Amino acid sequence: MDVNEKYFSNITKRERAIFEGGISMGALFHQFVGTPVSEATKENLERTIEESFKLQPAIEDVEVKINLNDNTGFDYISLSGDMLDVRIHTVVDDVKAVIRIEYIEELNYPLMYVEEI
Amino acid sequence: MDVNEKYFSNITKRERAIFEGGISMGALFHQFVGTPVSEATKENLERTIEESFKLQPAIEDVEVKINLNDNTGFDYISLSGDMLDVRIHTVVDDVKAVIRIEYIEELNYPLMYVEEI
Amino acid sequence: MDVNEKYFSNITKRERAIFEGGISMGALFHQFVGTPVSEATKENLERTIEESFKLQPAIEDVEVKINLNDNTGFDYISLSGDMLDVRIHTVVDDVKAVIRIEYIEELNYPLMYVEEI
Amino acid sequence: MDVNEKYFSNITKRERAIFEGGISMGALFHQFVGTPVSEATKENLERTIEESFKLQPAIEDVEVKINLNDNTGFDYISLSGDMLDVRIHTVVDDVKAVIRIEYIEELNYPLMYVEEI
Repeated sequence: MDVNEKYFSNITKRERAIFEGGISMGALFHQFVGTPVSEATKENLERTIEESFKLQPAIEDVEVKINLNDNTGFDYISLSGDMLDVRIHTVVDDVKAVIRIEYIEELNYPLMYVEEI
Repeated sequence: MDVNEKYFSNITKRERAIFEGGISMGALFHQFVGTPVSEATKENLERTIEESFKLQPAIEDVEVKINLNDNTGFDYISLSGDMLDVRIHTVVDDVKAVIRIEYIEELNYPLMYVEEI
Repeated sequence: MDVNEKYFSNITKRERAIFEGGISMGALFHQFVGTPVSEATKENLERTIEESFKLQPAIEDVEVKINLNDNTGFDYISLSGDMLDVRIHTVVDDVKAVIRIEYIEELNYPLMYVEEI
Repeated sequence: MDVNEKYFSNITKRERAIFEGGISMGALFHQFVGTPVSEATKENLERTIEESFKLQPAIEDVEVKINLNDNTGFDYISLSGDMLDVRIHTVVDDVKAVIRIEYIEELNYPLMYVEEI
């Protein structure tokens, strides 16, 4: 069976790049929110999140930055969506997209959007 | 701030419908996989997953079916991706999309794709 | 194989009641943190969390209360540990225990402890 | 406030060592099940799980082994409980405990128990 032919011929390459990036961003958020994290473990956690989601279809690269800024008084905290600054780079043939999540001060929540296409 | 104007004017309504559905499908999978489930609790879990993800942006409806078929020997099991049969209906202005996850026998894994657009 | 004989004969009934309650409390927190929730979906989510974790070994009852208090400005938010007020009732033969998680103002984080034994 | 005095004086050091290990084992399972993993990313994921849960109270050490054995045909798979072989070492004053999860062939599921106390 040709999966692309059977299941993805109804959308364009551009739409597929957006679709796969959206899936992985939603997945990443809900997989890792709640993980214990500290200044000392932050970097390895960032690298592991990147590596884990680079395994998914059409994902070319993942860049994860965890912002702990206001939480210096704790030995560790639970990772929350507000701390996530992530770019997921997708590629479908010659089309590339960058999906972003970042905390938007004015909205007071982390927003997922298509940063580049 | 007009969020749509500022963050989503670079993609079409059709692309936005696909994007938001992809996010919610990835999120749903990774949020609920691992939840203890049995024949007795299956239906309420299905309804709660539906309700939770209908809260997300552009989601019009969510239909969740959990297939426990091969697991009748256990008091309960951990929900896995293979058990999920889900349709997420998105709407952006006049454009509607249906995002699907279902276990594909021939692939031996659950596939996420755009079922209708 | 007698699982209790082989794997649990090194601890007392009281210790087992504490152990199983601890497992389920840690599990519950990390399974559901991140779930989208609103005033409208709160109650069903509470019931589903209760039902799901009542399936685990030695769990007699689960009482879940989600506190959304400071988040009335949002259509929905991601469930966080601070919002959880949960009692897990375990029973091993004639020994009962209640494991609790609640947000402690003075500590500024949610604490898990043995409330009754 | 003395947290130990106020919230943990009703249980022994031995019980506390079992309790904290149980919490972290339940947490670890439900936090990471669902994570994409392959032969290439397995080791870093193991180290990150270890580091993350060593942050929790009374945890002295965590040893994580992920068994992918039957899944060589896939580019990656979702981490499931059956793949986990984990030891959590807790210490409360002079009392040490080892909490274990391992897949038990005869039971056909992963069992959590107190391996050493």
